[in-house]
Amino acid sequence: MTAKKTAAKKTPSAPVASPWATTTDREQQREAKRNAVLQAAAQMFNERGFHATSLDDIAARLNVSKPTLYYYVKNKDEILLQCVSKGLTMTLEGIEASRRAGGKAMDQLRACMEVYARIVTMDFGMCLIRVGDEQVPPESRRELRRLKSAIDQEFRRLVAAGVEEGSVAPCDPKMTAFVIAGALSWIGRWYQPGGAYSPEDIAQQCIRTLCEGVLRRPDAAVAPATAPARGRARPPKAAPA
Amino acid sequence: MTAKKTAAKKTPSAPVASPWATTTDREQQREAKRNAVLQAAAQMFNERGFHATSLDDIAARLNVSKPTLYYYVKNKDEILLQCVSKGLTMTLEGIEASRRAGGKAMDQLRACMEVYARIVTMDFGMCLIRVGDEQVPPESRRELRRLKSAIDQEFRRLVAAGVEEGSVAPCDPKMTAFVIAGALSWIGRWYQPGGAYSPEDIAQQCIRTLCEGVLRRPDAAVAPATAPARGRARPPKAAPA
Repeated sequence: MTAKKTAAKKTPSAPVASPWATTTDREQQREAKRNAVLQAAAQMFNERGFHATSLDDIAARLNVSKPTLYYYVKNKDEILLQCVSKGLTMTLEGIEASRRAGGKAMDQLRACMEVYARIVTMDFGMCLIRVGDEQVPPESRRELRRLKSAIDQEFRRLVAAGVEEGSVAPCDPKMTAFVIAGALSWIGRWYQPGGAYSPEDIAQQCIRTLCEGVLRRPDAAVAPATAPARGRARPPKAAPA
Repeated sequence: MTAKKTAAKKTPSAPVASPWATTTDREQQREAKRNAVLQAAAQMFNERGFHATSLDDIAARLNVSKPTLYYYVKNKDEILLQCVSKGLTMTLEGIEASRRAGGKAMDQLRACMEVYARIVTMDFGMCLIRVGDEQVPPESRRELRRLKSAIDQEFRRLVAAGVEEGSVAPCDPKMTAFVIAGALSWIGRWYQPGGAYSPEDIAQQCIRTLCEGVLRRPDAAVAPATAPARGRARPPKAAPA
């Protein structure tokens, strides 16, 4: 005991094992808790709707009091803004990663579709589709629309590049980007977590239908129709009729 | 005068030319006015959002007072219920008409896609997509969901029949119906009345992309990409590569 005390006196600037968390730890904990609030809120908005969810409901789900929530978020509108913003940012980051991976425009386009389809089955992405930004105040909405537009532009750019390289059917890239975004966004409307279809099944089947078309291709091999076809990552190879 | 009076006495049940409208006329006028209220409301909900539209705004657009509106509708919630309900009913009626027209499953499916794509560019159909039924009270929402489900079931049935007849690519009809509904519903989100694309352009281009697929078909003729291609009702015929 005595020796330790002496050592502590000799090096007064040495780190003391404090029972309190460091500033960095506290910031990380605060961020994790704030994220838990946002995620619980997104889940409830998606389940029962934005208007039918109160801050009391969100607090109850997290087993905390409403005043505790106010330590992390200002109000319900700010929660929604953050949820939608996170959904958009995750999508843009995923698209950016696909772009960095490089390759043919069609491969990049497919990778972006996979990102998009996956994110709309997740809490923040689903919130973006189910609740949207109508409730967000106008000045914040402008920033969200900028992010949305960046996603749209990236899809149009890849479609145009695909037409250029001969992999995508000649089209108006704006229209084709809307068809893709619409079909994939819709997943966020009807997807039920824990239902018969896994997010991967859904993504692969929807992307296949988008890429190959609803019509049977004249030279396509006839494959039996399947409900939840897990892991069919690519459409079946075409074979001579 | 005397003769006329006598004649009137002789046939007391003959119609008298009244300056007041008949009950039928009055009912028709009332219905037309009620419809104008709903349509003005749908337009404003679509333009600025449900929450940002007040009954005062709707009254101002119609140049009437708010108390006048209450003669036709109970409140804003009832207006929304009626708008969404009309959007769904119009869609179902259009689908029913396509079914009665008969023909191959694929032709019926295409006709249903055209109905759907057209209706989501119209006031009530757009309201169905942009505002939706979250604000509608639960008991009314159940009826709306029944109508939505009927539309979905009809698309699934036609996709399955198309697979059966060999015109539609083998698929899970549920997934393919969702891809179609998603891509076409999305039109209601981004369509701008009076913009560069007419509803017909949009319908034809989106349906072509859905039917033929985003990927270039190996044997497809290369046609130049076009922005607003008015009246291209069918995809270009395939030609040997």
